[in-house]
Amino acid sequence: MDLYFSPLACSMATRIALNEAGARANYLEVDPRTKLVQNDGSDFRQVNPLGLVPTLRTDDGQVLTENAAILQYVADSFPGARISSGPGMERSRLQQWLCFIGTELHKGLFSTMLDRKAPAEVKAYILCKGLSRLDHLDNYLKGREFLLDHFTVADAYLVTAINWSFATPQIELTKWPAVKAYYERLRARPSVARAIAEELELYKAEVARHRTAA
Amino acid sequence: MDLYFSPLACSMATRIALNEAGARANYLEVDPRTKLVQNDGSDFRQVNPLGLVPTLRTDDGQVLTENAAILQYVADSFPGARISSGPGMERSRLQQWLCFIGTELHKGLFSTMLDRKAPAEVKAYILCKGLSRLDHLDNYLKGREFLLDHFTVADAYLVTAINWSFATPQIELTKWPAVKAYYERLRARPSVARAIAEELELYKAEVARHRTAA
Repeated sequence: MDLYFSPLACSMATRIALNEAGARANYLEVDPRTKLVQNDGSDFRQVNPLGLVPTLRTDDGQVLTENAAILQYVADSFPGARISSGPGMERSRLQQWLCFIGTELHKGLFSTMLDRKAPAEVKAYILCKGLSRLDHLDNYLKGREFLLDHFTVADAYLVTAINWSFATPQIELTKWPAVKAYYERLRARPSVARAIAEELELYKAEVARHRTAA
Repeated sequence: MDLYFSPLACSMATRIALNEAGARANYLEVDPRTKLVQNDGSDFRQVNPLGLVPTLRTDDGQVLTENAAILQYVADSFPGARISSGPGMERSRLQQWLCFIGTELHKGLFSTMLDRKAPAEVKAYILCKGLSRLDHLDNYLKGREFLLDHFTVADAYLVTAINWSFATPQIELTKWPAVKAYYERLRARPSVARAIAEELELYKAEVARHRTAA
């Protein structure tokens, strides 16, 4: 399968899932500003008109978008990795967490906080609405190792999102000790550590590229 | 099952799904400002600390939150209603649309546009980022009756979201003719027409209640 990604973006959750599964994939790096695929210079918008990563092309050529859909697809494609959930209510809980992270944390908080072009007033509004979500998460994570009873793709997404707090000084993790402890524990997990290390190097190269272009 | 909802909020998608299934449920109305359950005056935050609808209590007492999770739970609970998708890639497509509506349209566009307290500068920023999502949707809906090949819970969610455009004059549906035609077609569907009619009355009562309290 082909995975279109940008370094340290939410697509890193899929890389973590693939690392967990020991699965190979063809990683295609998308520059978040130009939307050019770095591997061949092609226009990513021809693949996904919204220009959003992650975007997955399956082995039979189908293009799938949206993080929650891609993560469940990868989890179900590698049942041996045990990064999915059981059926029934267990699957509902996995979907509940994927949805919470996608809507409340990613879209409702971090997306805007990470946007260099977002005015200060917009960031203030978003922070005011969004920080209570971290209170809720902190409360839930107390005494738990993972979101469900074992590591799943929801954890892959959550650690990817919390990792953004390095670039959002307004969101100080020390205020949410259970979230901070969860993040540090997960960051040490080999699949996560490898993903962050690989994408951090690519991110630095991206920043240097943008600096040269400016 | 118990469904905690607020009139015309995203919880209406679950009402539409239950209407499609001809299923009975105990509807518990949450006032979006006070978070009090109108049926008995209890505090909804005791059920869902985030205070967000929809929240579902299953027949065996489990509390499930987040729209994408609840809609898939209801769809799978009533297979005879055929409002779910097939397995495999069909399910991935359902999840893709639920995620797109939840993150890009609901959270990324309408949530803020519907917030009376959001400053004008915040709304301008959100509109600038969000309207391209409606272009994408319009393009996709051309020549299609539903998001997938039959009516699913993703349509229940989408028609609920587009219905908010009545309260967001900045989002004029006439600019997206395929979205507008889809909305008008779906709104005429009995399960949707009944849900909107019922919730519109409750919404008017909510507005009157808030006016009295002010």
